[in-house]
Amino acid sequence: MLFGSIEAGGTKFVCAVGNENYEIIDSVHIPTTTPEETLHKCVEYFQKFPEIKAMGIASFGPIEVRIDNPKYGYITDTPKPNWSNTNFLGTMKKYFKIPMYWTTDVNGSAYGEYITSIKNHKPVRSLVYYTIGTGVGGGIVNNGHFLGYMGHPEMGHVRLKRAQGDENFKGLCPYHHDCLEGLAAGPTFDARTGKKGKDVPISDPVWDIEAFYIAQAAIQATLFIRPEKIIFGGGVVSEELLDKVRDQFSKLFNNYLSVGDLKHYITMPTVEDNGSATVGNFALALKQYYKENIVKI
Amino acid sequence: MLFGSIEAGGTKFVCAVGNENYEIIDSVHIPTTTPEETLHKCVEYFQKFPEIKAMGIASFGPIEVRIDNPKYGYITDTPKPNWSNTNFLGTMKKYFKIPMYWTTDVNGSAYGEYITSIKNHKPVRSLVYYTIGTGVGGGIVNNGHFLGYMGHPEMGHVRLKRAQGDENFKGLCPYHHDCLEGLAAGPTFDARTGKKGKDVPISDPVWDIEAFYIAQAAIQATLFIRPEKIIFGGGVVSEELLDKVRDQFSKLFNNYLSVGDLKHYITMPTVEDNGSATVGNFALALKQYYKENIVKI
Repeated sequence: MLFGSIEAGGTKFVCAVGNENYEIIDSVHIPTTTPEETLHKCVEYFQKFPEIKAMGIASFGPIEVRIDNPKYGYITDTPKPNWSNTNFLGTMKKYFKIPMYWTTDVNGSAYGEYITSIKNHKPVRSLVYYTIGTGVGGGIVNNGHFLGYMGHPEMGHVRLKRAQGDENFKGLCPYHHDCLEGLAAGPTFDARTGKKGKDVPISDPVWDIEAFYIAQAAIQATLFIRPEKIIFGGGVVSEELLDKVRDQFSKLFNNYLSVGDLKHYITMPTVEDNGSATVGNFALALKQYYKENIVKI
Repeated sequence: MLFGSIEAGGTKFVCAVGNENYEIIDSVHIPTTTPEETLHKCVEYFQKFPEIKAMGIASFGPIEVRIDNPKYGYITDTPKPNWSNTNFLGTMKKYFKIPMYWTTDVNGSAYGEYITSIKNHKPVRSLVYYTIGTGVGGGIVNNGHFLGYMGHPEMGHVRLKRAQGDENFKGLCPYHHDCLEGLAAGPTFDARTGKKGKDVPISDPVWDIEAFYIAQAAIQATLFIRPEKIIFGGGVVSEELLDKVRDQFSKLFNNYLSVGDLKHYITMPTVEDNGSATVGNFALALKQYYKENIVKI
């Protein structure tokens, strides 16, 4: 059985076709331009695979995930130009009469890591996935389910204790200025140093500021969710950064509760090359396929 | 059928006996002294009610809630003198051979509010309950279940953006100094003003500092859990304070996501006189009774 996956990011869409073992058979990258052009290219791509039985779509947001809401399947009020109020799921459903699972990009990634933990015989019952890239987002899988009744989690927009020496940086979030995203997303490197993050050496103190903020996010996730694992993906994240995050976590958390070995607790994704969401989408497509077909029988 | 409830707080234990409608038949307050003396008085109280079929215990913490852990049922490393490493549940089980549900004080309160919402035909599928009193704690009910695999939530110990004018207040938490508890628990009023919170008029700017911190907690709860309701109980909380919290929430959140009418979203408990935990305990006792008796049949 074949499944489709769309990981819809602000820079590119990753479309893929995979099998029941969540292995990728084919994939393509589509640059994120206008909704019309981008979604049209997605449709063209999947029309080449008429045997696809279900699809998983993990999109940047905020999106509407409440099934009983008239805007279910839409990207809602996004700061991304042209994309507010886009009927993403509806557009795909117009062309493909198959079951589709609809969630956020980070929920898709979180689910991919959850499924991979089971496949690898190291099952994690509860995990939190953060992406630190152009923006900051978070997904949560708890006992195999996503959290949220009023919508999906958006843990990138919490306020934090400001780092020493960073008090005068205003923060870049258009909604909140100095929330986590406004203080720690990729573009903050350009704003603070005039250089891209990838060009700033790890010895630069700006990475300690970054780690101080990300460690607070990990502490929040710990205290709210008590997960078995916190995973950090996205372009800003590296093992060197996570070493700094673990150090700051230890100092700030002060062993208040046991979280086990920090090397296992705070990690990069198990699926390589930012592929977690594609795995998650295949698994969610399969889940949705069985859900809709059991109802019909 | 009769049920027992213990709400174990740092100042007093509230023991109660109730029926299947979660109505209190009898109750007593026991001052929290040493574990031996306090638990002995609990045992003596419940021995007067041999017809009790199950018990719910909601305790201050941190406590061990993982059933497969050897310390399950213990109060673990608490800053409260004499109470670290207390086998609370085991002591009760020694005297009463009945099903017992064991959770945190704030989970008990959260569950009581959840059950009451159903009883009142205004069901809430997901809610977060904070207590702001001698300490700050949080409980979460999501789709009828508590959150947490590595343990119970402890949202009182997150870091926050510091309030203007409050930068030099060090914070009172013995573990973290300026976490939510260290900045907003009852004793911070004594430390900042030399007066008890109840003696500080609501017009005093210290209440704006308090509201700024509590609003950030509400935003965190919103972004992690996307609950239908956030409830604040405990001695520090009043409707006047929550009005200030709603104002600060609006300013800080900047309508990033829809949470509905703030008057309904951020509220005091529905159960009066801090009785939420007792209702929750009765309901959890009933749940545990059916769980253990179905297994035996």
